[in-house]
Amino acid sequence: MIIHNISQLLTLAGGPQRGADLGNLGLLSHAAVLIRGGIIETIGPENILLQTYPNEPRFDAGGRVVMPAFVDPHTHLVWAGDRAAEFELRLQGKTYQEIAAAGGGIRSTVRATRAASVEELKAQARPRIQAMLRHGTATAEAKTGYALQHPGELHQLQALLELDAEEEMDIFPTYLGAHDIPPEFEDNPDGYVDLLCTQMLPEVREWWQSHAPGRPLPFVDVFCETIAFNLAQSRRILETARALGFPLKIHADEFDNLGGAALAAELGVVSADHLVKTSPQDIAALAASETVAVSLPCTPFGLADPHYTPAAQILQAGGLLALATDLNPGTAWCESMQFVIALACRYLRLTPAQAIAAATINAAAAIGQAGRIGSLEAGKQADLLILAVSDYRHLGYRFGGNLAAHLFKRGELIY
Amino acid sequence: MIIHNISQLLTLAGGPQRGADLGNLGLLSHAAVLIRGGIIETIGPENILLQTYPNEPRFDAGGRVVMPAFVDPHTHLVWAGDRAAEFELRLQGKTYQEIAAAGGGIRSTVRATRAASVEELKAQARPRIQAMLRHGTATAEAKTGYALQHPGELHQLQALLELDAEEEMDIFPTYLGAHDIPPEFEDNPDGYVDLLCTQMLPEVREWWQSHAPGRPLPFVDVFCETIAFNLAQSRRILETARALGFPLKIHADEFDNLGGAALAAELGVVSADHLVKTSPQDIAALAASETVAVSLPCTPFGLADPHYTPAAQILQAGGLLALATDLNPGTAWCESMQFVIALACRYLRLTPAQAIAAATINAAAAIGQAGRIGSLEAGKQADLLILAVSDYRHLGYRFGGNLAAHLFKRGELIY
Ligand SMILES: [Zn+2]
Ligand SMILES: [Zn+2]
Repeated sequence: MIIHNISQLLTLAGGPQRGADLGNLGLLSHAAVLIRGGIIETIGPENILLQTYPNEPRFDAGGRVVMPAFVDPHTHLVWAGDRAAEFELRLQGKTYQEIAAAGGGIRSTVRATRAASVEELKAQARPRIQAMLRHGTATAEAKTGYALQHPGELHQLQALLELDAEEEMDIFPTYLGAHDIPPEFEDNPDGYVDLLCTQMLPEVREWWQSHAPGRPLPFVDVFCETIAFNLAQSRRILETARALGFPLKIHADEFDNLGGAALAAELGVVSADHLVKTSPQDIAALAASETVAVSLPCTPFGLADPHYTPAAQILQAGGLLALATDLNPGTAWCESMQFVIALACRYLRLTPAQAIAAATINAAAAIGQAGRIGSLEAGKQADLLILAVSDYRHLGYRFGGNLAAHLFKRGELIY
Repeated sequence: MIIHNISQLLTLAGGPQRGADLGNLGLLSHAAVLIRGGIIETIGPENILLQTYPNEPRFDAGGRVVMPAFVDPHTHLVWAGDRAAEFELRLQGKTYQEIAAAGGGIRSTVRATRAASVEELKAQARPRIQAMLRHGTATAEAKTGYALQHPGELHQLQALLELDAEEEMDIFPTYLGAHDIPPEFEDNPDGYVDLLCTQMLPEVREWWQSHAPGRPLPFVDVFCETIAFNLAQSRRILETARALGFPLKIHADEFDNLGGAALAAELGVVSADHLVKTSPQDIAALAASETVAVSLPCTPFGLADPHYTPAAQILQAGGLLALATDLNPGTAWCESMQFVIALACRYLRLTPAQAIAAATINAAAAIGQAGRIGSLEAGKQADLLILAVSDYRHLGYRFGGNLAAHLFKRGELIY
């Protein structure tokens, strides 16, 4: 099939974009895309492609923007229940203690998720997947982390594998048993770290090899914060996971700087995420590494917190910057990478072009998939988004709506 | 027709909600709605309604929330062109002077709008109307103000009247010839005020009476700010309009406090909008009047400005607070009242219930239509929104997406 009549073809060609190079859209005019077998076969001048392949089926892009589908490299897609009541209590001025006493906070999600079957988890995640697709996301990372025990965490993994197989969005799972200290270990966090390192992580490896044979191991992630795992605990969990062969991720510097970003750089973690309170030294360490810095602007927005990722400093240091939703029931129930771009333009001061690159090719790099998705180049998977507008800069400029007109996944028209 | 199987019926019954009364949703469980001839005939217990009217067609709400469709009481719906390039220039660090030199700012919209035909204006507004409907807005106020001369301003009025007749959304026009000093009067703003008062406003009245015979006169609005019309000029324009029989609106205190809010209260203006830099005295004057205070949180959000309407003070003083998008090409291209609610919960610290009341019954009051729309009560127009969720608090809690599942306009299913 040939996609033609494109006002702006954003190829994002050339691989992940570091530092000052961020924002190279590889914009082509009068170009068309030939897709065969779900793969981009070639991109070239529209008139030549249409002449060379006169019998190829055609899709008219209507004079609008064609770009890579979004990649969302940080989501907590699978959970049970919601925290709408807690949101209201907070706005009524209730304190954190009162909300916790009323059963709020992450523990309410943990209770509901532990009680849910795999089928229930999948049923609750499906409308979120539909919303992600509808807003232009064709691939997402998705974490466990709301059971904090086995088999609950494995049920979340299983739900993610099944959703990946059943739904039109590709899902890359992450094991986040280290999302929080479970209530059972409230007074003995090191005991939970022991359990994770000596039992749970080896169990995950074994479970994965029998449930997803041949598929590369999922990421292992840890929440390195004062309110969760300290730096030494985070290091132990990540080093154990690495020794078991897992690729790594880390939640770092959302509320406090514990040194998680430098740890990420040292350990070759694939992405370090949040990065709000990151120090200049840690930014330098990150920028000197292959670790992708993933900013999650929906989280401060969700909390009406004025502190966002210091994107300018990360880029100045030469870092690899990506964007994600952080879709979760506590701080950021948002499925739209378009809204993430709108926030990034305002609060990270990225240009639309920089934000688009951070939400496509660099987001693919943040899940180790930049060789396969995130750009439109010959040989890559044909995950394409057609916008409802003819100028890419409407992404960022406009907000609160949805500019996705058509989505192709592996060359198939989803809508 | 009976709408049944409703988890929460938000009636918003009882009229506009002032001060501490804001947030009374009139929430009914196990209730159903009987609609006949586009009007709500009765609301009552589901089992009784279904028994009493066994042959009435039924619409199954699927166990979800039913509420009044949103009313958006402040939009600049009709303009030509866009300012996406200017948005990018701002993020690239260009100064206001450089952007103006590159043809940016409101004057670029004025140039494009003056050059557009009525048909072109309508064609460019239609996708915005579709987006508004798709996000649950069934009625909107809409302003002229991008021609700043005749006949251009009258072309905008004509586009609004025709769109109101042709599209499924109801439109209440506002004449905003006093949106800005036109370039022709840059050095003689009082000359433009003279022209407005002695020629343009009388012309509008005459034009309206021949183009919309029998229809009540549109609102007349003025932008009372340091960068536009000062307090004396604003007073003269509003008093002239009032003498001609126009109902009034005002843009006040977006950037500077010139006293526009107190002027609004004094003159019986229907709504005073923006209200960011409003003084405690002006808040008190407003609260003691019938003027509705309309907050436009998309505008500071669009500009990443941390200053929002002091909603708590307005409510504490006993004011009538409403919400609107301010949809416009410069600072806030946003069609979604759901997103306005998400902002209002975070930056105005409204609860979801307060924000919903401010976006329905109080928004209807801000355009003088609280007797006809904005709530679900016997005798009112059947403009209903069915959400995709069973708990109203998901409005505000979730953001960046769209929770509208079905919209009824005068009892007709739009989607
Ligand atoms: Zn996270
Ligand atoms: Zn306005």
